[in-house]
Amino acid sequence: MQHPPPSSIPVGVLGATGTVGQRFITLLAAHPWFVIKALGASPRSAGKKYREAVNWKQAQPVPNVVKDIVLAECTPGAFEGCKVVFSGLDADVAGEIEAAFRAANLAVFSNAKNFRRDPHVPLIVPLVNPSHLSIIPQQQSLFTPPLKQGFIVTNANCSTTGYIIPLAALEKSFGPIEAVMVTTMQAISGAGYPGVPSLDILDNVIPYIGGEEEKMEWETLKILGGVSTDDKGLLAFDMHARHPLRVSASCNRVAVIDGHTECGLRAQVREALASYTPDALALGCPSAPRHTIVVHEEPDRPQPRLDRYYQDGAGVNVGRVRQCPVLDIKFVVLANNVSIGAATSSIINAEFAVLKGVVPC
Amino acid sequence: MQHPPPSSIPVGVLGATGTVGQRFITLLAAHPWFVIKALGASPRSAGKKYREAVNWKQAQPVPNVVKDIVLAECTPGAFEGCKVVFSGLDADVAGEIEAAFRAANLAVFSNAKNFRRDPHVPLIVPLVNPSHLSIIPQQQSLFTPPLKQGFIVTNANCSTTGYIIPLAALEKSFGPIEAVMVTTMQAISGAGYPGVPSLDILDNVIPYIGGEEEKMEWETLKILGGVSTDDKGLLAFDMHARHPLRVSASCNRVAVIDGHTECGLRAQVREALASYTPDALALGCPSAPRHTIVVHEEPDRPQPRLDRYYQDGAGVNVGRVRQCPVLDIKFVVLANNVSIGAATSSIINAEFAVLKGVVPC
Amino acid sequence: MQHPPPSSIPVGVLGATGTVGQRFITLLAAHPWFVIKALGASPRSAGKKYREAVNWKQAQPVPNVVKDIVLAECTPGAFEGCKVVFSGLDADVAGEIEAAFRAANLAVFSNAKNFRRDPHVPLIVPLVNPSHLSIIPQQQSLFTPPLKQGFIVTNANCSTTGYIIPLAALEKSFGPIEAVMVTTMQAISGAGYPGVPSLDILDNVIPYIGGEEEKMEWETLKILGGVSTDDKGLLAFDMHARHPLRVSASCNRVAVIDGHTECGLRAQVREALASYTPDALALGCPSAPRHTIVVHEEPDRPQPRLDRYYQDGAGVNVGRVRQCPVLDIKFVVLANNVSIGAATSSIINAEFAVLKGVVPC
Amino acid sequence: MQHPPPSSIPVGVLGATGTVGQRFITLLAAHPWFVIKALGASPRSAGKKYREAVNWKQAQPVPNVVKDIVLAECTPGAFEGCKVVFSGLDADVAGEIEAAFRAANLAVFSNAKNFRRDPHVPLIVPLVNPSHLSIIPQQQSLFTPPLKQGFIVTNANCSTTGYIIPLAALEKSFGPIEAVMVTTMQAISGAGYPGVPSLDILDNVIPYIGGEEEKMEWETLKILGGVSTDDKGLLAFDMHARHPLRVSASCNRVAVIDGHTECGLRAQVREALASYTPDALALGCPSAPRHTIVVHEEPDRPQPRLDRYYQDGAGVNVGRVRQCPVLDIKFVVLANNVSIGAATSSIINAEFAVLKGVVPC
Repeated sequence: MQHPPPSSIPVGVLGATGTVGQRFITLLAAHPWFVIKALGASPRSAGKKYREAVNWKQAQPVPNVVKDIVLAECTPGAFEGCKVVFSGLDADVAGEIEAAFRAANLAVFSNAKNFRRDPHVPLIVPLVNPSHLSIIPQQQSLFTPPLKQGFIVTNANCSTTGYIIPLAALEKSFGPIEAVMVTTMQAISGAGYPGVPSLDILDNVIPYIGGEEEKMEWETLKILGGVSTDDKGLLAFDMHARHPLRVSASCNRVAVIDGHTECGLRAQVREALASYTPDALALGCPSAPRHTIVVHEEPDRPQPRLDRYYQDGAGVNVGRVRQCPVLDIKFVVLANNVSIGAATSSIINAEFAVLKGVVPC
Repeated sequence: MQHPPPSSIPVGVLGATGTVGQRFITLLAAHPWFVIKALGASPRSAGKKYREAVNWKQAQPVPNVVKDIVLAECTPGAFEGCKVVFSGLDADVAGEIEAAFRAANLAVFSNAKNFRRDPHVPLIVPLVNPSHLSIIPQQQSLFTPPLKQGFIVTNANCSTTGYIIPLAALEKSFGPIEAVMVTTMQAISGAGYPGVPSLDILDNVIPYIGGEEEKMEWETLKILGGVSTDDKGLLAFDMHARHPLRVSASCNRVAVIDGHTECGLRAQVREALASYTPDALALGCPSAPRHTIVVHEEPDRPQPRLDRYYQDGAGVNVGRVRQCPVLDIKFVVLANNVSIGAATSSIINAEFAVLKGVVPC
Repeated sequence: MQHPPPSSIPVGVLGATGTVGQRFITLLAAHPWFVIKALGASPRSAGKKYREAVNWKQAQPVPNVVKDIVLAECTPGAFEGCKVVFSGLDADVAGEIEAAFRAANLAVFSNAKNFRRDPHVPLIVPLVNPSHLSIIPQQQSLFTPPLKQGFIVTNANCSTTGYIIPLAALEKSFGPIEAVMVTTMQAISGAGYPGVPSLDILDNVIPYIGGEEEKMEWETLKILGGVSTDDKGLLAFDMHARHPLRVSASCNRVAVIDGHTECGLRAQVREALASYTPDALALGCPSAPRHTIVVHEEPDRPQPRLDRYYQDGAGVNVGRVRQCPVLDIKFVVLANNVSIGAATSSIINAEFAVLKGVVPC
Repeated sequence: MQHPPPSSIPVGVLGATGTVGQRFITLLAAHPWFVIKALGASPRSAGKKYREAVNWKQAQPVPNVVKDIVLAECTPGAFEGCKVVFSGLDADVAGEIEAAFRAANLAVFSNAKNFRRDPHVPLIVPLVNPSHLSIIPQQQSLFTPPLKQGFIVTNANCSTTGYIIPLAALEKSFGPIEAVMVTTMQAISGAGYPGVPSLDILDNVIPYIGGEEEKMEWETLKILGGVSTDDKGLLAFDMHARHPLRVSASCNRVAVIDGHTECGLRAQVREALASYTPDALALGCPSAPRHTIVVHEEPDRPQPRLDRYYQDGAGVNVGRVRQCPVLDIKFVVLANNVSIGAATSSIINAEFAVLKGVVPC
């Protein structure tokens, strides 16, 4: 029941001048379906042309199609006509604004963390569990009258996104995993801008990222778990409950610009990884990587500088698959935290929703 | 049966112009007992004054006491009269030279890896297992006639040294450990000079250090295990055999100058760590840290830049002691790879041997 | 007319929890004359013990002598009895607070920029122009009634301090300089904390530091120029007017933690540099470096990592003295921006003032 | 007299497995005219397939068109049929090999330094002085019998290439320059692989690059000077002799991966820079940047991380054009040392030679 993609779907971006917003704009400006119609920013920037308000930090120049768009405040009225709204808002304002957009019947695909733990909002890594879109009708039915088009979909924390894709590949081939231990070495871009002070990270490792380990442990259960019907007939995320999964994360910040490296433990065979084909690719999402996981054979790969742009940053690198004396298997994962770890995931989620008809276009 | 330290013990340094040799010289120039009498280098440098031959890379200047010492070739004759010889030789030459020095009845304390796996050579982390010096008489008895003063003592790989000290503290309080998983983020100085090319590490992580994981796994068993008598009446390292210990290491190189950060897993309580007093301190080794392990309470410590000089680099930092959902407990270790991880260990080993009378002075 | 230093001079520190304040405290805790009696901070921190309020960022631990000092607000009443007050305040508050302290008859030695351009406040690089203290009586006479003990002395911008010392050495030997061109590569610590975002500087150079070039050009004239009497009989800084000096600065930020490297042009001979003895040393200031300028002969020195701690960071490194095809001579300067470039300068200034009797003790 | 480019020109690459060779291959694999037919390497690699012999260090994967090419030794016989040979050889072997290829009537475009100072070999920055190809017939006439197709063309040192393009733009608009002072902050990739040890550059600046300043000063004169006829009727490079030009360079290595930043002094107006159109663009070289110089208006640009890929690395960034108190004008230049500073220049030189008929195709 795949819907044909229309040639032109009007979209908006919330938090358009921030780091994630800039990534959304860069990706959307080259997108085959989505056309940017509205950009939202803080009241301080609203009313200015995008080019004048933004402190652009990408290696590519500001896309021409947005240079002269006048920034709006982040209110639903300014986004009328947008079929999809992408949110790159900071967590301190995202909750209220995204709720207002949903209530105004807009489809919100958010990179913010505010609704990730909401029991009616799907937390979707597009290369893993887009099937969780199935909870949206229930999310809409909680409103009176029920919403017809408004909903919120979130994507996961960047460090979760990277390491969970190989895990999904392994579960698909070998069934439920029992235990995972993961140690991350995360890039500074994961902290946004200005983010990590240079005095804290040059010639240094910071062995702590506030809240990150808890996020990784909790999000893993929500994403890899299923959606089932509870005794009241309501849909609920089962948090991997039938096959309890223990996850232990240790998160570190290192002096790398882009690309989170993660030393995952527990798994089986590289064939399962290399042949993994997620639904998003099968369905034809244009931003899904042609090949999801590359398994490196060289002993010293993957490395952020050499491998973070695999599949334009939408693919995942795995290497050093080997026996583990304590658990079964261990390997290294490298995922691009600013692409598949952030804006790219929101966009593939939206593509999937379009093809499934969840966003009517 | 502690021997009083004499006021002046003549010592030599092999590989004196290399990175480890420079560290030995810096430490020995300020040492209360040891006096540098001879310096050995490659035939290319032999015959030159130290100051002219060395490409000095330490932040402190070349100590005055060695500037005008004429470098000798690494042959025993040039080190006559030295009670102790420290070896900072590269592995490609250390095996043959150290063996020759031992055969010439010189006591060799080596930072090289060549003899670490020898069943008659102790592998000593001075804050953990100096009791393994007990195997030396057996090592000497293998020669005909038996050696009277010559022997070889090695210290461990820098990444092993750092993380094994907290493990020893835990075993001392709670008995044998069953499983350890450790992920390292190792400094570039651990690779020597020129070592890691800058193009490989700036804005990068290298998730592989050749042979390092095997070394950490194997050395841990030799160091934490005991020395026992086999059925022929010979002493042997038991490799933790009575309480099998599984060790899983994942080693990474990061853009840090000095200080290896390691995310250890499995352990119990911080009191056991903070109160750990190794024999080397109890015996009065002057280079042993007054306080072996500092346990940090701040969530974002230890960090290489802020904590690597704890106890002049001879102490070990532990932080983030917390429950682990998979094993029992996890924590972060930071140890200075160029101090306690290398030259400082050799020196404390020699101090311990002097105080025990193993080196007659 | 040198005054004997008393054994104990009570001092205070303004802005005690900031980066510069932490440096002041580290240096003063080990100082032979000065004893910390009062610490000032923002109203938010006032009332807390120093150890609890500070986010300590130095490699050495917090000195015991200040750990339990209760932070005061930055008002003169809380600093009664202090003979000297060091100011590490941020520029946005330093102006008002320092003026209030002066008016309350306290001697203020400030690292802040606010009063550097004041025509009655000396701008002193202690190894260059402490003779400018001579303007203090005039500064005091501007008040009604004239101040007896209150005054403000500032030290220079860190990039000015480093490169101006070799220039002073050259002027002392060869007379007035006509033209100077200087290109800086400045460390991130010069921007304070949090300062430069890591995303801006890792794998990067920022060829601009706001206001820095103007400061270097202007401050050079004030410092190297003399103090003369104008036609109204008042003292005034002559800004090198009798021998006009053209200064051209190009300032860059690079990924170095501590130590500003500067490529100076114009000069003559290395002997003049190496033999330079500033008045502060001749007078016996205990924090003045025993040897002011080291001239390196190796072609690849000075380097921040190897040379920034020369004379505990109070000395200046010069290297690569060579002919310049356009001006006369060119060379490289390295000075420690957080030592002689900041807090150390304020302290030597205060020492000089004590020895000259400007601060009565 | 422009020759139409043929659709397919067979070319070879010498030193194909090295850093520069990898760049040549990456660029040539996507080139509209040139088709790689032969790859040369050391005897150690010769006989292996390219993919198996190379330690590939580029962010893009090895191009498919070269993966299975069997590496030849660098002898002319193996390159028969190649109209153009690009040389990425190391200087220690380039001299002899390139001479042999020329003698065998092959057209060599070299990135090596060996022939740059040869009085009959043009040293061409393609966006500045491709007219120097005019000396080739004379170079060929020195052989007996004169060569018909063999010759050598070199391009300049990477740091020269970057800063000389704006100077050429200024000379074109305002006539001869009298004096230039330039301070460089050069990327580590300029030193090749393994190149700069990480221990030398992390948290550091190295204020010296052996021979680099002399190269910049000398090459500037050869490139900006003309070709004139001497009294024997022979062509000669005049080294800017009629308008003597003094050049003073200060070269530094900084912790940047790609992109040399240079603080140039002396110049006039930004319009002259922005409107500069080199002959290589006018003639239609496909690899010449559409726009040669971008002049930035923001005060903190250009920066390596944000601007080094301007025009795919073939364009030059200029910023901070401002008055200089000592000379006339100063500005900052950023050029991509691995693109226009190396392989890209050789390729545009070859394109120019093809269009001019110097390489008959």
